Amino acid sequence: MKKQTANKKEKVVLAYSGGLDTTTLIPWLKEHFDYDVICVCIDCGQEDELTGLDKKAKKAGASKTYIIDIQDELCNDFVGPCLKANATYENEYLLGTSLARPAIAKHLVEIARKENAVSICHGATGKGNDQIRFELAIKYLAPDIKVIAPWRMTDIWKMDSREDEIEYLKKKGIDLPFSSAKSSYSRDRNIWHISHEGLELEDPAKSPNYENLLVLSNTPQKAPDKETKLEIEFKEGIPVKLNGKKMKFKDIIKELNKIGGKNGIGIIDIVENRVVGIKSRGVYETPGGTILISAHKALEELVLDRQTFEFKSFVSEKFSQLVYEGKWFSPLRNALSAFIDETQKYVTGVVSLKLYKGNIIKDGTSSPYSIYNKSLASFAMGTQYDATDATGFITLFGLPDKLHGAIDRKL
Amino acid sequence: MKKQTANKKEKVVLAYSGGLDTTTLIPWLKEHFDYDVICVCIDCGQEDELTGLDKKAKKAGASKTYIIDIQDELCNDFVGPCLKANATYENEYLLGTSLARPAIAKHLVEIARKENAVSICHGATGKGNDQIRFELAIKYLAPDIKVIAPWRMTDIWKMDSREDEIEYLKKKGIDLPFSSAKSSYSRDRNIWHISHEGLELEDPAKSPNYENLLVLSNTPQKAPDKETKLEIEFKEGIPVKLNGKKMKFKDIIKELNKIGGKNGIGIIDIVENRVVGIKSRGVYETPGGTILISAHKALEELVLDRQTFEFKSFVSEKFSQLVYEGKWFSPLRNALSAFIDETQKYVTGVVSLKLYKGNIIKDGTSSPYSIYNKSLASFAMGTQYDATDATGFITLFGLPDKLHGAIDRKL
Amino acid sequence: MKKQTANKKEKVVLAYSGGLDTTTLIPWLKEHFDYDVICVCIDCGQEDELTGLDKKAKKAGASKTYIIDIQDELCNDFVGPCLKANATYENEYLLGTSLARPAIAKHLVEIARKENAVSICHGATGKGNDQIRFELAIKYLAPDIKVIAPWRMTDIWKMDSREDEIEYLKKKGIDLPFSSAKSSYSRDRNIWHISHEGLELEDPAKSPNYENLLVLSNTPQKAPDKETKLEIEFKEGIPVKLNGKKMKFKDIIKELNKIGGKNGIGIIDIVENRVVGIKSRGVYETPGGTILISAHKALEELVLDRQTFEFKSFVSEKFSQLVYEGKWFSPLRNALSAFIDETQKYVTGVVSLKLYKGNIIKDGTSSPYSIYNKSLASFAMGTQYDATDATGFITLFGLPDKLHGAIDRKL
Amino acid sequence: MKKQTANKKEKVVLAYSGGLDTTTLIPWLKEHFDYDVICVCIDCGQEDELTGLDKKAKKAGASKTYIIDIQDELCNDFVGPCLKANATYENEYLLGTSLARPAIAKHLVEIARKENAVSICHGATGKGNDQIRFELAIKYLAPDIKVIAPWRMTDIWKMDSREDEIEYLKKKGIDLPFSSAKSSYSRDRNIWHISHEGLELEDPAKSPNYENLLVLSNTPQKAPDKETKLEIEFKEGIPVKLNGKKMKFKDIIKELNKIGGKNGIGIIDIVENRVVGIKSRGVYETPGGTILISAHKALEELVLDRQTFEFKSFVSEKFSQLVYEGKWFSPLRNALSAFIDETQKYVTGVVSLKLYKGNIIKDGTSSPYSIYNKSLASFAMGTQYDATDATGFITLFGLPDKLHGAIDRKL
Repeated sequence: MKKQTANKKEKVVLAYSGGLDTTTLIPWLKEHFDYDVICVCIDCGQEDELTGLDKKAKKAGASKTYIIDIQDELCNDFVGPCLKANATYENEYLLGTSLARPAIAKHLVEIARKENAVSICHGATGKGNDQIRFELAIKYLAPDIKVIAPWRMTDIWKMDSREDEIEYLKKKGIDLPFSSAKSSYSRDRNIWHISHEGLELEDPAKSPNYENLLVLSNTPQKAPDKETKLEIEFKEGIPVKLNGKKMKFKDIIKELNKIGGKNGIGIIDIVENRVVGIKSRGVYETPGGTILISAHKALEELVLDRQTFEFKSFVSEKFSQLVYEGKWFSPLRNALSAFIDETQKYVTGVVSLKLYKGNIIKDGTSSPYSIYNKSLASFAMGTQYDATDATGFITLFGLPDKLHGAIDRKL
Repeated sequence: MKKQTANKKEKVVLAYSGGLDTTTLIPWLKEHFDYDVICVCIDCGQEDELTGLDKKAKKAGASKTYIIDIQDELCNDFVGPCLKANATYENEYLLGTSLARPAIAKHLVEIARKENAVSICHGATGKGNDQIRFELAIKYLAPDIKVIAPWRMTDIWKMDSREDEIEYLKKKGIDLPFSSAKSSYSRDRNIWHISHEGLELEDPAKSPNYENLLVLSNTPQKAPDKETKLEIEFKEGIPVKLNGKKMKFKDIIKELNKIGGKNGIGIIDIVENRVVGIKSRGVYETPGGTILISAHKALEELVLDRQTFEFKSFVSEKFSQLVYEGKWFSPLRNALSAFIDETQKYVTGVVSLKLYKGNIIKDGTSSPYSIYNKSLASFAMGTQYDATDATGFITLFGLPDKLHGAIDRKL
Repeated sequence: MKKQTANKKEKVVLAYSGGLDTTTLIPWLKEHFDYDVICVCIDCGQEDELTGLDKKAKKAGASKTYIIDIQDELCNDFVGPCLKANATYENEYLLGTSLARPAIAKHLVEIARKENAVSICHGATGKGNDQIRFELAIKYLAPDIKVIAPWRMTDIWKMDSREDEIEYLKKKGIDLPFSSAKSSYSRDRNIWHISHEGLELEDPAKSPNYENLLVLSNTPQKAPDKETKLEIEFKEGIPVKLNGKKMKFKDIIKELNKIGGKNGIGIIDIVENRVVGIKSRGVYETPGGTILISAHKALEELVLDRQTFEFKSFVSEKFSQLVYEGKWFSPLRNALSAFIDETQKYVTGVVSLKLYKGNIIKDGTSSPYSIYNKSLASFAMGTQYDATDATGFITLFGLPDKLHGAIDRKL
Repeated sequence: MKKQTANKKEKVVLAYSGGLDTTTLIPWLKEHFDYDVICVCIDCGQEDELTGLDKKAKKAGASKTYIIDIQDELCNDFVGPCLKANATYENEYLLGTSLARPAIAKHLVEIARKENAVSICHGATGKGNDQIRFELAIKYLAPDIKVIAPWRMTDIWKMDSREDEIEYLKKKGIDLPFSSAKSSYSRDRNIWHISHEGLELEDPAKSPNYENLLVLSNTPQKAPDKETKLEIEFKEGIPVKLNGKKMKFKDIIKELNKIGGKNGIGIIDIVENRVVGIKSRGVYETPGGTILISAHKALEELVLDRQTFEFKSFVSEKFSQLVYEGKWFSPLRNALSAFIDETQKYVTGVVSLKLYKGNIIKDGTSSPYSIYNKSLASFAMGTQYDATDATGFITLFGLPDKLHGAIDRKL
């Protein structure tokens, strides 16, 4: 048996949030695995209280704590490809949690390597998608590292409630000011969104209690009576200016979250299909994301030809499914992104919008690469279009229909 | 029975609206083709003034006029399949004009057969989609009937303006109270929608002048400050009750057009790709349709499993493209509808919605065929779900990722 | 503990083949679960020795044995839909095993219901697809019935070799003439195919040892030097006559297996992707199936229009993936079949083929619903085609390309 | 009126083959357009007699002739992307003509620019695909250049037969040794294939007369009785070695055409759907191409994971359709190629094949990036796979099926 000198212990990297659940995991990991616990808190823009987190972890028995701000990387390397794809799972969910998990996993692995940790522990539930997203990323990046998912270890994880966890901490001599009040909803927040699950949402026949629920947004009903005008400039699919001012992508998202939230934009209530074969119901707030995808689509309408538009829409669905499933790091996701990037070289221009009580109203779009041609589009016959060409077009385009009509009359 | 030599003349069926353009076609067809002109006005819910249309046609030289109300057939046989498909072209346009053209063509052909006409004449422009939709349907149904599309016959159709047409009618001794004022927008209306093209809309950089433009709807800004609640019951994908009252499909659409229009629902501003290779910009109002598709989708979220949901979404895009292209009568459209109908046997249930200033807010959905399972969806571990199963699932689901990580590190 | 009156015991239905593995399961199920064992052998055309199977099962301790010939049902209800789809997984594998599993499961469930059994036991390996196919079908048809998969029960199934199994039988006092010689390949056979896995096939760098391996077929090298002519008549996608003679579908397949096998047709060597995330390598023999799909495709070339052809090809890939995955009984498979059936109403006609040493050579195809039109196809300009129409067609078809060329020169 | 000094005349670039048709076009273009005619013969590997072509053109009145060998460029820039895609139109046709047309058009445009020509003339028929492919490429590359397609100019092109053309040349004082015998089939040949249309092929009920028809290949019946072994090494999707010898892509294709042709490989008889809405029937010979795609697919089986394999198959169909339609130069083709290129980074390895009388028999495949894992694939349970994981996998994978079974019993 191993000697119990602390520096000889094996290490685990714990994805740490500062909340009761992951704090409880610190002594639990030490008890059941005799690990040194390295807490890692990845700042994705969740706007939690991060000050004091260090001390809390230490008090609970962590041997070290990292707090890493990856907001810029998250926006540039994870949100960006999703925006270019107009990625929305099942046509509604903007993948806020899905795209953050592989980014977090990447940094957990980096710290694990730096610390020579043998395990990574996450606190995701055994019924959800996040366990899959974390673990597939870790399998891809570091197949040798063991994953510990306590919520699935029903033989050694026995706590069922916040009370149980507080009791356990106390028993371990850890006294921290956690309340036993159940948090109203199960939430995940980062710079791209906040999600809400649980309580009344578990019954799809019930309306969400928006008064209790919303964090980033007004309801449309409470939004201002006056519309807000916006102008977003894109370069190759990514926003580079807001209202004429050059800004970092991250700052554009933050600003749009504020403006959009105020105007009741991007509140989504959906019953979705989880990877594990379960339907679940959630409410998402994505004020900035909803505005950006809306603007991005308006620009694509101008610059993408019909066949590219249609096929990209199909690629985008597959892309969204993959990201939802946790397959960010995969040959197919890379190949889909290569497709999408190639289409984005045209997606440069300026989109004007008006926000009003939950509505995004298009207010004019322009691009140097527009293939909209006013002279062609006008009902007035111009010199660029000879209407008699349409006769030939229709004759050939309709040839199979003519033949099939005859066949169908035979059947 | 009619005497005169007139009954020796060949006949043309003219798709007649009562407007200046198609009225001008009456003497024009007689002059250039020496036809007997049979006017056929198909009532698709365009709510035009149809009284007196008969006399107008006669005065302009028509030998007979039919006015046929096909609103119920249009709803049941054309709108219904589209609703089941959630059909929206390029994710926005609800295909209001596209689905009506084949319905109209079908009746034009029926009258042509009844009258032994040799030709059918329509007044669709040579730059648009409608010529294709009319003519493909006619090719399918009656390949022997000749189509006359005056707008493409630039050798014999020489009129460029309303003034020219009025002048021409006068020259032919036809005095009708048409105004030479250009109608503000180019519009098409039926029970499912109204479309607007032209004027400021021809420049995508410009905002639509909604004050002038809207016919069915308030803007969200002018909609009531109070929300309107609705309850729609579906049976196999088709609405059968509104607010608990059993109603015909047609009447549900009409009622929702009123309610939705009042609340600023379903105003769509889009640059779309026409079949003839041109981009055009239009504004559509589909208050009832937007509500119905939204409700239909909410119900499908509850009852369709993930893989059916995903594949149906792809089928729906293809379906929408086909209908847009005028391929309503085609083996592929039939086969796609067979797919869709098979999925709709689950789409029975009740959807509650709140309408508020352009927003459709889900207010609870339920179905006897729901596969949403509260006990499975809840974060609380129940007896139906064993979290340790997820471990095995993730191991196998992530096997290719693990293998590919190793490969990618070699590259 | 339960009393040991036989009629009080719970029952298990065992999918029984008469081989060593499933025979061993009889006493094993009794020992570990104290079940009455009902053996069910489903005859799918595996051409195993079925006589005496009854006695063998009884000797090993089974309380009852069913032998059920489902070949006609298998052909009509399972092979038929696959043929209409031209179903081939990853473009090569004709799904012989995949389509039989749900058929077998259906009958296992029927017997289980009749016998009031509480469990069904199958002998499929824990690394393969068949466990999934059996169990998904059972979950769909009878979610209350427990599935026993001994190969995955590594805590109580301890036998690793044929010797172990023979030893175990002996210990239980069961003396049956099984040989301990390992069967050369792992095989599955039914009326649609035979598959081979294992031995040298486990290394994709190695050539299959066809001399040892083939069961139904000659190699092309050993096939006759003279070609064999065939004529197959289809009605709505299903063969109804062979060489002019009306025959049952089952008998056509059997006959084509003979003729095709003799001529070296349908030997497929493939590395495929299993559902469980593993690649495996197998050799399949499908002489009759390969001929039928080839003939079916030749007929579809004549009767399906371009867009139906293309979309059906996509539907077929999805269909094949679903069947491979064991999702035969699922809403999506039903909906895909509805699509396919709708297309098959045109697939009636006669296909002539020559078989020669592994080659299927088309020898002429005809159909009353052919949309091939000789006058249109000929290079000679006929009256049905006006070449000047092509000018208009190309102008509009190429409009986006012209516009995009200009854009691309700007980039 | 223009002065008739030769150097003031406008120029046309004529796609010139040296045959009767395009030779006749030289005086015809001069007569009807008063052009200087620049003949351009692009050598794509058609193996026609090119010596003397220069003189023939001059004699017929051309003011200049270019002969340009683009075989390497054709292979590297056009065949290569198609091979990476496994591009086959309607699952059979390897796109030999389709991929060459844009390559030829590119060079026609280059010469037209160099010579300041105002027009390009091609001799493609008005019923075929090639007119579209030529003209879309020219529209994209040089929208200002006028295209002359004499076969569609039925008002000024009046010749119906070879006799007419010879007569016309004579009338113009051009005496060249053309025979009036109609060439047996309409053919197009380049390094990737030869196509045959016309004569008995125009009736799909007739078998091709292979004895007359084949140019590159033996029939399987006449191929050697002994098999030929081959080894092809790929790097990122492109063959780089043949039988261990490093060779240029072009030379590998040429060599494989010889070897494959001798062994009766790659003879394809297909009824295909042309872009202009017509079905046509052709026979293609692609000995080298069929071998290369077969080898390329064998390698992809080893290295692509399931989801990439499946999606790439769909991308490949779209790619093939686009290339067939003449949309080589288009944003979508570029984006599809970006997708495909990304997948090809794994497609490196060695494929062994045996050719025998029309059969390509896999003889072992290996790759450093193989994700085939013998230990996982083997039926023996190894340490890398825990069969109990499959239990969890199946439980979750089958959850929707279990739920849907219950629903379906309600319906």
